[in-house]
Order: sequence, then C-alpha cells, then structure tokens
Amino acid sequence: MIIVLRPDATEAQVNHIIEKVKVLGLSPHVSKGSERTIIGVIGPEDVLRITPLEVFPGVEKVIPVLSPYRLVSREFKKEDSVIDLGKGVKIGGKALVIMAGPCSIENIDRLYEIGRQVKKAGATVLRGGAFKPRTSPYSFQGLGKAGLQMLREVGSELDLVTVTEVMDARDVSLVADYADVLQIGCRNMQNFNLLKEVGVTKKPVLLKRGMASTVKDMLMSAEYILSGGNFSVILCERGIRTFEDSTRNTLDISAVAVTKQLSHLPIIVDPSHAAGKWGLVPSLAKAGVAAGCDGLIIEVHNHPEEAVSDGEQSLIPEKFSRLMAELKGIAGSVGREIL
Amino acid sequence: MIIVLRPDATEAQVNHIIEKVKVLGLSPHVSKGSERTIIGVIGPEDVLRITPLEVFPGVEKVIPVLSPYRLVSREFKKEDSVIDLGKGVKIGGKALVIMAGPCSIENIDRLYEIGRQVKKAGATVLRGGAFKPRTSPYSFQGLGKAGLQMLREVGSELDLVTVTEVMDARDVSLVADYADVLQIGCRNMQNFNLLKEVGVTKKPVLLKRGMASTVKDMLMSAEYILSGGNFSVILCERGIRTFEDSTRNTLDISAVAVTKQLSHLPIIVDPSHAAGKWGLVPSLAKAGVAAGCDGLIIEVHNHPEEAVSDGEQSLIPEKFSRLMAELKGIAGSVGREIL
Amino acid sequence: MIIVLRPDATEAQVNHIIEKVKVLGLSPHVSKGSERTIIGVIGPEDVLRITPLEVFPGVEKVIPVLSPYRLVSREFKKEDSVIDLGKGVKIGGKALVIMAGPCSIENIDRLYEIGRQVKKAGATVLRGGAFKPRTSPYSFQGLGKAGLQMLREVGSELDLVTVTEVMDARDVSLVADYADVLQIGCRNMQNFNLLKEVGVTKKPVLLKRGMASTVKDMLMSAEYILSGGNFSVILCERGIRTFEDSTRNTLDISAVAVTKQLSHLPIIVDPSHAAGKWGLVPSLAKAGVAAGCDGLIIEVHNHPEEAVSDGEQSLIPEKFSRLMAELKGIAGSVGREIL
Amino acid sequence: MIIVLRPDATEAQVNHIIEKVKVLGLSPHVSKGSERTIIGVIGPEDVLRITPLEVFPGVEKVIPVLSPYRLVSREFKKEDSVIDLGKGVKIGGKALVIMAGPCSIENIDRLYEIGRQVKKAGATVLRGGAFKPRTSPYSFQGLGKAGLQMLREVGSELDLVTVTEVMDARDVSLVADYADVLQIGCRNMQNFNLLKEVGVTKKPVLLKRGMASTVKDMLMSAEYILSGGNFSVILCERGIRTFEDSTRNTLDISAVAVTKQLSHLPIIVDPSHAAGKWGLVPSLAKAGVAAGCDGLIIEVHNHPEEAVSDGEQSLIPEKFSRLMAELKGIAGSVGREIL
Repeated sequence: MIIVLRPDATEAQVNHIIEKVKVLGLSPHVSKGSERTIIGVIGPEDVLRITPLEVFPGVEKVIPVLSPYRLVSREFKKEDSVIDLGKGVKIGGKALVIMAGPCSIENIDRLYEIGRQVKKAGATVLRGGAFKPRTSPYSFQGLGKAGLQMLREVGSELDLVTVTEVMDARDVSLVADYADVLQIGCRNMQNFNLLKEVGVTKKPVLLKRGMASTVKDMLMSAEYILSGGNFSVILCERGIRTFEDSTRNTLDISAVAVTKQLSHLPIIVDPSHAAGKWGLVPSLAKAGVAAGCDGLIIEVHNHPEEAVSDGEQSLIPEKFSRLMAELKGIAGSVGREIL
Repeated sequence: MIIVLRPDATEAQVNHIIEKVKVLGLSPHVSKGSERTIIGVIGPEDVLRITPLEVFPGVEKVIPVLSPYRLVSREFKKEDSVIDLGKGVKIGGKALVIMAGPCSIENIDRLYEIGRQVKKAGATVLRGGAFKPRTSPYSFQGLGKAGLQMLREVGSELDLVTVTEVMDARDVSLVADYADVLQIGCRNMQNFNLLKEVGVTKKPVLLKRGMASTVKDMLMSAEYILSGGNFSVILCERGIRTFEDSTRNTLDISAVAVTKQLSHLPIIVDPSHAAGKWGLVPSLAKAGVAAGCDGLIIEVHNHPEEAVSDGEQSLIPEKFSRLMAELKGIAGSVGREIL
Repeated sequence: MIIVLRPDATEAQVNHIIEKVKVLGLSPHVSKGSERTIIGVIGPEDVLRITPLEVFPGVEKVIPVLSPYRLVSREFKKEDSVIDLGKGVKIGGKALVIMAGPCSIENIDRLYEIGRQVKKAGATVLRGGAFKPRTSPYSFQGLGKAGLQMLREVGSELDLVTVTEVMDARDVSLVADYADVLQIGCRNMQNFNLLKEVGVTKKPVLLKRGMASTVKDMLMSAEYILSGGNFSVILCERGIRTFEDSTRNTLDISAVAVTKQLSHLPIIVDPSHAAGKWGLVPSLAKAGVAAGCDGLIIEVHNHPEEAVSDGEQSLIPEKFSRLMAELKGIAGSVGREIL
Repeated sequence: MIIVLRPDATEAQVNHIIEKVKVLGLSPHVSKGSERTIIGVIGPEDVLRITPLEVFPGVEKVIPVLSPYRLVSREFKKEDSVIDLGKGVKIGGKALVIMAGPCSIENIDRLYEIGRQVKKAGATVLRGGAFKPRTSPYSFQGLGKAGLQMLREVGSELDLVTVTEVMDARDVSLVADYADVLQIGCRNMQNFNLLKEVGVTKKPVLLKRGMASTVKDMLMSAEYILSGGNFSVILCERGIRTFEDSTRNTLDISAVAVTKQLSHLPIIVDPSHAAGKWGLVPSLAKAGVAAGCDGLIIEVHNHPEEAVSDGEQSLIPEKFSRLMAELKGIAGSVGREIL
C-alpha cells in the first residue's frame, strides 16, 4: 500500500497516519521528496484495506500494491490447475475442451439429436439451459427441473459431461444433483451468496465474466468460490459491454493472456454470447484457441428458426463440425490439441 | 417490428418470412424499394420477439419498434407514480425525499447518532446496510439480522422510514419484516429470481441500476417487479462503468430525464456510489436535483475514518447539513421542494 | 514514481534498476516487505517517465505519483482563472457565461435572428459553425470563410462574443481573424499540431473533451496550449462514449467537480451534444449549473426542421428563453449568477 | 428509413411528414398498426439523412435502413480488395503481410538493425514513427524529416516497404515523398481534413481505428479517403477504450469478422497498442491471424530499455522471430499463408 500525501499535508497529519499504520501492526516507510511525501506500507494489505485511509486528513490517494486475491493467483500456485470434469474429461491441460449445445433445453428429442451431433464433431461437454435468466419477465424462463432431467438423461446416454446454469442459491443442490458442472451466468458473477453456495459443493464451477467486470473482478469472484473450499473453477470470457454495437458484446480476447499471467485457473471463451450472431462465431472461436484458451463453449442448434432463445447466435451442426476441423489445426499450431 | 431483407434476398425467402408472420397471427406490410425490401409487422411484438427472425434466410436485420416493457411505461400510465413509503413520506410528487445514513450498520449507538443528525438536516429516510455485497470474500459482510434489528429500532425511535439491501431471495421475507423499503443493489439488478421475490411482497422496492445496464435494461428489471404485482418501485441512478477513472463510476445524469420520458416511476440519484469520493458528492447531489430527480440517497458517517465500508465516500453530518441547505434552494428553482 | 518489483526479482535486478534511477539524477528509496520490494523515486517524474521502466527485468509495474501536467494544475495556480473573452464578457468568475446559437451557420438572416433571440434571453456569446466536422463525406461541410464573415458581422451588430470551431492547423489564423474564441472540437482534442497552433495565438480557446478521453487526458491537451504560451483555455464537458444508447453521448457531470479540484481553468457544459435530443437539453443544462460549471454552450435554432445539421438537438428560442429563467434561479442557489 | 410515429400522433402530423417526404422526391409507405403508425421510405436515404425528421411533430424516432457508406461496402464491391504496397508486397490476398519495427525512429543504425532482424523473421513492411502524437507536450515528438530520411534509406537498402504516420495535413506531401504507406493514427481517424488530404494522394493509406469509434465510424472515415479518389485503404483494429484496465486498450477482435462482412477492404491487427505490454502481444497477434485478419503491425525494438517511446510494449527480435514461426502454422490452418 502506498499512501501519497497532499503537497500541503502537515507534520501532524503525517504523524497521525503513521500512528494509525503502526496501531494496525504494520511498519510505515516514509519517503520525503521535493513535491510530495509518500508512505509505503509493506506487509499484509488486508488489514489496511478495511481502513479508509483516503479520508484521513492530508491524504491525496492510496495505491494498493498487492492484488486483493490470494488463492486464485499464480503466486499461490505456480502450475496450471487441471480440473477433472468426470467422464474422462479434464480441462486446463494440453487438450482443449469443447462444450456445445443449445441455449435452452426445449425437449428431449431435440437435445438428444443436438448432443449426438456435437459429440460426433468432437465436443465432450453438453451445454443446455434449464433455468434461463431473461431480461424480460414475459420471455420463456426455461423448463426447470424437467430440463435438468433431460440433460442428465442425454448426458448419460451419450457419455457427455453436462453443464447448466444455476441462477438461485436455493437451486444449487438440485442442479448439482443433475449436472456435472455448475455454471454461474454473467449476470450473477457478483451474486456473492450464490458464489458462496457453489463454493461449498464439490462440483466444478464454470464462472462467466460479468458484462461490467474487469479481469480482476472476475478473479475476486472466483476467490469467493475457492475460499469456500471448492478449487475446481473454470473462468469464462464471454464479452464485456462497450459502445460498439455491431456485436452483442465485445469479446475481450486479451483476457485470456491476462488471466493466464495472473491465475492458475483454466479459462474458456464463449464466442456465441460475445458475438450474438452466428456468422461471427467461427472467427471468435478460432481467435480464442489461438490466444491460448483452454476450451470453448458454443451454442449449437439444429433448427435455429425454432429455437426458443438465442437462435440468432447458434451454429447449425454442419457449421459447428466444419469449425471443429479448423480449430484442430490451430490448436496444433499453438502446442495444444483437440482430441 | 421491421424486417430488413438482404439486397440479394430471393422471392422464396421473402414468402417464407411472410408466411411465418401470418402463422403467428400478424399482418406483414411489404415495401419494395430500389435497394432493399422491408417487411413491417405492426401489432403485438411479443409474439414475434420469441421467434429468431434474424436466422431466416434472406434477413439482414430485425428492428424492434415497440419497447419491450409495458407496465413501467408512460404509455401504460401517463401521470407520475407517487409511492407511499409509510410514516408520512411519499416519493414521486412535488416533495423530494432525501435518504441518508451509513454504508454499513456498525452498532446501534453510531446508527442512532447518524440517524439523529441526518433527520435534523432534513432527511426522512434512514439507509444502512445489514447484508453487504463485497467484492472480496475477506471483507466485512454486514451484521445480518442483528443489523436489521438495529435499523428498525432506530427508525422507530426517530420516526424515519428505513431502507436496506436484500441480496438473497431467501432473505426477502426477513428483510421485509424489519425494513420499510427493500433495496436491490446494482449487482443484483438482473438477479431475476430476487426481482420476482420482491415482486410478490407489498413493500416498496428501491431498484439500483446495474453498472453495465442501460436505462431500458433498468426498466425491464422494474417490469419484473411490477408484473409480479408490486407497483411500488423507485428507480435509482448510481453511475455506470466507463473508462473514466477519476470517479468510481460515471453518474449518468441524463438517465433522470430519459427515465421521466419513458416511465411513470420515480427516480432518485445516488451521488455517493457514483463519485466514490466524498469531495465530489455535493456537486453530484445538486446536479441530480436540478436534473429533476425525485430524491437522493447519500452516505453519511460521523467518523469516516472508522467506517467499516465506504468511508471515503461518506459525508460527515456537518457537510451533509450544509448541502441540504443548498439543495432546498435548487429544488425551489425547479418547482420542487424539500420539506 | 513507485516501482513495484516481482516477488521473484533478484538482487541483481534490483541493483540494475537502482543504478538506472541514480544515473538519471534521482534518489531511490528501497522498501523491502515480506511479499514485495518497492522502490520509491521522489522527485521530478518527467525524467523517469521517458524511461520504460516496465521492461526492466524484475519489474512488475510502475505507478506514477505525480500528475503529468503542470501549468493547468491547481498546484501551479491556486485561484480560479478568469478569462476575458472581450466585449465585457469574462468566464471563470461569479457570473456564468451562456453561449448559444445554431450548430451550422446557414445564412446571415437566420444567424442574425437566432443571435437576436438568444441575446434577448441572456446569452452573451454566439456560437455557429463555419467549418463542420462531419462523419460522412457527403454531409454539408459548412460555409467556410463566408460563414466566418457572417459570424463576425452578426457578432458586431449584436455586440455578442463569437465562438466557432477551427478544424485545421492551416485555418487557425483565418479563424482567429474573424472569431473571438477558437473552438477545438471533441474529435480534435488530441490533434496535437492543432493544439500547438492555437497555443501560439492570443485568442481564448474552447477545448472540448474527446469522446474517449479522461478528464486527465483533457488536462494534458490543455497543457499543450498553455505550454505554447496561451493561458486562456476554457474546458468543455460534452459527453463521453459509453454503452448507453438512449443519449448520443453520456454527459459526465462529475467532470465538472473533478476538473475544479485538479485545475484552475474554467469548465463549461455542452448539454446539446451530450443529449443529442432537444427534449433532454434543459435537464442537463440545469444539472451543469448546479454541479458548478462556469457556463453552458447550447444549440438554438429557430426552425429546427430546416437545420442543415443537429436540428434534433436544437432548442427553439422560446424553450431556450424559458430555460434561462430557471437557470438563473439555480445559479443563485449555488452562489453564482447569470447577468 | 423508417419513421416511427408517437402513439398520439395526429392525422395532420402524419400528413405533414408524408408531404415532406414527397417533396424530397421519395415515396412513403404508411403502415397503421394497433399501437403505432410507421412510415417506410425506401430509396436513396442520403437526401433524407440531411433532414432532421426527429424534430417533426409526432415523430418518435427515425431508424435508418441503409448504411451511410457506399464505396467501402461489400455491396459496392463483392470481392476482397487487394492493395499493392510496392516492392512486390500485396495485402488482402492469401498472403498475410507482417509490418514490424520500432515505435519511434531514433537513429539510423538502430533502425537498420531492427529492420534487418524483422526482415529475417519474415516481415515485409518496416514501421517507424517520425512524427509522434504524444499526450504530453513534454514528451519526445519524433525526429520529423530526418526520421523520414532514415526510414527511406533503410527501406531501400533492405528492400522493405515502409509505413509511417502523418499527423498533419500540411505534412502529407512530405511524408508521401519518403514513405510507401501513409498511416493515419487512431487520434486522427476523424481528422476529416487529413483524410481528405490523403484521399487525393496515390499512396496506400493505413487507417487506424479511433479509440471511441465503432466499426461503422471507421468505415465512414475510410469512405472519406475513397470518395477522394484513393481506393488503397487498409483498416487497422488497434483496440478501443473500455473500463478494463489490465490492458492499455481492449482489442476488439470481433472487428475483423464484422469488417469482412461489411467491407471489401483489408484489415490488419495491431496487438502492440492494444495490449500495451509486450508479454500479451503474442497471444493477441495469434488471435488476429486466427480471426482472419490480412496482416499485423507489431512494435519490435532491440533495446526496449532504451526506447524513447512504447518500450514496454515492444517485442525483442528473438521473441518476434519465435512468434512468426507460430503465426505461420496458424495462417496455414485458416487457409492463409505467411511468405
């Protein structure tokens, strides 16, 4: 923590701050320059963070030096985390994991058919929403428990790992009963009670980045889950909100490399929600793999015209299959593989 | 809904879309121009919204004409909604409502002291957090039920309306037992299950705008609450996330006038969370009143150096009191009043 | 300047940096903590700023302590700058300055008529564009020199100060011959050669904030002008680009108070370009005055339906006149006045 | 153009608009629905665009249907434009073009050495700044003409195409005398006079996207150049300004695919300015190639510690060389090649 004093800070004000720092059990290093005095406080910043040093008289600004997260950081764990999703699928190692499926689970036949096709193309995880966060109260809200049952049934039959969103802390144990991976949607990235709830399960969690969240915010949310005892967290870059209006969101492709520097957790890319238009999905999916992500989650639907949600951003199975072929080549060029 | 076709759309594609529109019970108006054909679909857009027309062959884009919200709109209700908060306090009419108090409830003596001082300055609603959404799992998370009890006790004693945040659908009935107004925080603006839960209470709801939410998104979230049967919703502009880093968030002051055009619901301004620094709070509070808001929510603390959260953005009671005097003048200049 | 080292920085790396700092004539203060070593360099940061310390081995990040601007800062000059615009009009003191007029100068009769009406309502500066920055090459590009002549003629006749945009370094002396105040538009805020050129004139400059510029960026651009010898700079907040799409730009009302803290220069607000819709202009204008700005610049047109540019955001003279009455009340409430 | 009327629009208002449209020589199609009347105007939108229909009484909003650019659009020219940069280098075809070199030209020996190394690694275009846009007036502003001479000399000797920025309309002919490609920097993307000036040269232009510009804004700026007669424009995605602060800008990787859909012009990616940190450059460069860009522009410096600008985002030649090897593999996987 660096405390920068105002140019007109008095001796008494400086001493008041020094004393406060000492009371907290830390040692202040004072450096007086021609234009400013600064106080460096090296040590556990957590105890300082809870003190609003900015309001102390004479303080101009307070600059944190250490990152506020611990367990998710590269410093805490140097090597990449590899997370076991079950059914022989692991994420974070050399092999990329491709998750695919419809936005919403609509009925079992359609889910089965899509599942069959994405598996054939190389996906190992089946996605599908049973609880749907919709901006309008009048939109289809998902099949709920019935959808979860279909997802489990199709996952079992096709031997695919399943992932689905849980939106409500009250539903965590229900969803955990049916799905292999619990997804936290972007609108719930800072629903801290929900994070705590999935933190006490043993299920892998797919944590999507919030639309207004920095990479560091995302890591702080992951820290909630790890600090609850669940270290199986997969991060997901899915686009942030910007002024650009030709895409639904702006895929922050840099987040892949930034996250890899700061954290040991795996990170995947969701090109479908970023683009919002199926025609852009292949370009973004390929960019994600080239950038170094650990997997992708892609919306695939066999009859987009009839999809109850997100039809406009879903690939049809043929296009998904063609994309997979290209992805394999790129993965190979960056030292990875798609099995 | 306007469906704009691609310049190379075929006759068959146009007919396929026209047929689909008719099947939905709507009547398409086709206009052929030199460069484009467009199909106007006038009527209830809801039935069309669920059909992903963008994926139909030959479609370039689909442009909605009607707004997706109903109950919150000016068209649904022309006159301003005036909401009764209890204890003689009403919001949305000529009188502005000033809400003030500490970020977190820390102990009853301090809450009582701050409450006494903000009341003396003219506030009629006491704010104070018992459940605190914190980005770090290691930060103070609020006193919970004990905090709610303190809030109710101080509110009763000082005859102040009370408002406090509810973060979890499981806590709605608990919080409703203790507080007069339920606050939905910015991070939960799209926690749709929580919105549904407060929608079935009879308590007024203070809905804060999400950091990445447009005004229209905020209105859609309010629609969730109204459609549940609870029409007592107060909107709150508290800043959005932008690239500007000299403030915690960017107060979108235009949102006041935009909301007044689109909706009959009252809207207040939160200058404290927007600014993130107490020195900027008076300027923003005055701007809010001049812009035409129906009230303010301001963080006030009598010992900011000891505040457990948001000390840096809290006004001390003396400064709050001086601000209130200025606000009364401005309110008068724009045809409003602070009692 | 604070240099934060990586946790694994070696002794040799630390010494290499210390040496470099000393070579630059500065004295490094080294603080070793349990988790990090930091090196504080107190002194003139300018010499350090040109050295890319981030690339030195062992460095994690470099945090500047001092602001990069000098002449525009409050530290350089404590009291507010009051700038004489001629014809008895001064900006930065107690009296607010209202600038009004059409977006583009169209013909002399219309300019005269609008000028007469805004003067009657209380404006003392007449705005009007002769050179227009248009996003489309096919849009009306302004009357050029003929427009400047009309502006000067109308300004003289009505005894109004005139302000108009200069877009090109080659036109600075031409525009300076005709207008009292030179406007730098938002798209040219970082056209550094243009800034240098107006920096060597003796004319007051109205510098509009760029759409993607922070307040600090705006101050750096002003620094270009002051460092050229021209201290008569008026800043202008006119909205930044964000995801919100109900307004043309997002008026960053906080910029008024932030600028007042950091700089001695006057700042005005442009509600017309921020809003992009005339119906929102009064609310934003009032907010600007309440927030503490030194003036406003407002688009007024007597026949918006026929305006060649920005008709949709222009107030008609009657509405402008009514707004001025309200603004006078607000100005009085915040210790200012509109003459 | 679609004109949406307010629900309370009167018959007289509707007729007033219809008349206006007819006066402009266009034919209005009126569709009356239960909730709204809309007027579709199919035909050349340009004549309508200059009329501020939004201010006509009864109008709620006006929605353009056609894009405002012509010459840059895919509709104007279906096949990809391939631009000849001289010295046998063409951009826009199967072969990707890699541009590399220092941010600023510092001296001829260093430029020659860097040029030699990037050529060896596979670059065919040498970049280097002689005129530097710097946010601070106190920063190094470039060597000017002397720098241009060094660039030409090194380019000739090494048989590399040269690209350098021109910041001022007055310098266009000077820079065109020395460099093969004229770069318009991001801060000048909407310096319309500069765009016009390069539009009348015969030199290829590298147009960088502005920090607050949408893809459509970039295309409009390119339209300025094409409409001046110069069809040799290369677009460049270099990051936009967002709230994310772990990178200097946010690379909008989707812009590659969006531009390819909308325009026939080639587009390259600048990973260096987007990232602002050399450690992130390889990941972004690879993402760009995978996404389908036509080339890259990368900052390379052999002694970043001594670079006078942007040292922190420059790759050293060894790392650049290693990156080129990986890029070749990715290019092959997406049907492209690096010669």
